[in-house]
Amino acid sequence: MRQYPRPLGKLINELARLPGVGNKTAQRLAFHILSMDDKDAFRLSDSIREAKQTMKYCSVCGNLTDVDPCSICTDDTRDRSVICVVESPRDVAAMEKIKEYRGMYHVLGGAISPMDGIGPEDINLRSLIVRLQQDDIKELIIATNPTIEGEATAMYIARLIKPSGIKVSRIAHGIPVGGDLEYADEVTLLKAVEGRREL
Amino acid sequence: MRQYPRPLGKLINELARLPGVGNKTAQRLAFHILSMDDKDAFRLSDSIREAKQTMKYCSVCGNLTDVDPCSICTDDTRDRSVICVVESPRDVAAMEKIKEYRGMYHVLGGAISPMDGIGPEDINLRSLIVRLQQDDIKELIIATNPTIEGEATAMYIARLIKPSGIKVSRIAHGIPVGGDLEYADEVTLLKAVEGRREL
Repeated sequence: MRQYPRPLGKLINELARLPGVGNKTAQRLAFHILSMDDKDAFRLSDSIREAKQTMKYCSVCGNLTDVDPCSICTDDTRDRSVICVVESPRDVAAMEKIKEYRGMYHVLGGAISPMDGIGPEDINLRSLIVRLQQDDIKELIIATNPTIEGEATAMYIARLIKPSGIKVSRIAHGIPVGGDLEYADEVTLLKAVEGRREL
Repeated sequence: MRQYPRPLGKLINELARLPGVGNKTAQRLAFHILSMDDKDAFRLSDSIREAKQTMKYCSVCGNLTDVDPCSICTDDTRDRSVICVVESPRDVAAMEKIKEYRGMYHVLGGAISPMDGIGPEDINLRSLIVRLQQDDIKELIIATNPTIEGEATAMYIARLIKPSGIKVSRIAHGIPVGGDLEYADEVTLLKAVEGRREL
């Protein structure tokens, strides 16, 4: 006997393809979905289809959006002279959460990683150069991740842009607020010491 | 500014309603879904809708199925004289995994829980009685969960059925295979001692 009826098995398989969802979790989710009200389950199904159909990349900044250009690029209250460069749309969401940054964004859609065959031409860099030439940009804040790839990308962009006279900065890396010095890894601690500021 | 474009925010909300999926996980899943191929995302969406539309409860045993009666109830190679009583369709799937049990099932769809206002008439018990009267059943294996509700349900069913002369058994509870005596809780250890067998 097959272990599950076909539609249920199919649902479990599809759910198990999601990141961080193993077979057990997929089973639990599938049984939960079957126990949901029809209208709730259909709303979940429709929201996947709708999001996938309507969300696209902003032609200006590369962020995920349902209108093009995105609501950040068209927001007149924001400071157009500062661009924060991030790797993914998720990073834009994280930055927006702090509700302090009021500049623009540029989403690279990845980071330079020679090991994976991803070069500068494979990420959303060309359009950044175009923006820097067209608009009056004063500062570029590079907020790529503090990984080898993110650091390499930051260095690459800094070297590329510096000659043009635009200020290029990198967000600080150090001990997270609420974090314990004792539990910080060496690299983070090193970054924290290197990035120390006079009080 | 809204933090996410509407279709994305909607998808995150719907995903966050799933059990064990918090807001962060929902965000991660939503962004992953948006980065999937269209056809993969649509297949996920369709599998939810299809499973929800085609899966129903077997009119005989109460298990989830896409055909009625379910493939277990119509399987002529199985032993029709034994019925294993479980709380949920998930438990049937777990039992089927051991590939040893070849009898029938009866899914209660819950357990008796006076605290939650769930009485014997709220679970799928009446149809079990009918099956016991109609078919030639020799043994009823009660495999409800070893929780207060599951134990209460097991006791209730046992008392109800015993007078009819049908053998009623309860699956063993004790130390799981590979488990460590040292880490077993007291109740499990007590069950293990109570359920000891002569070698």
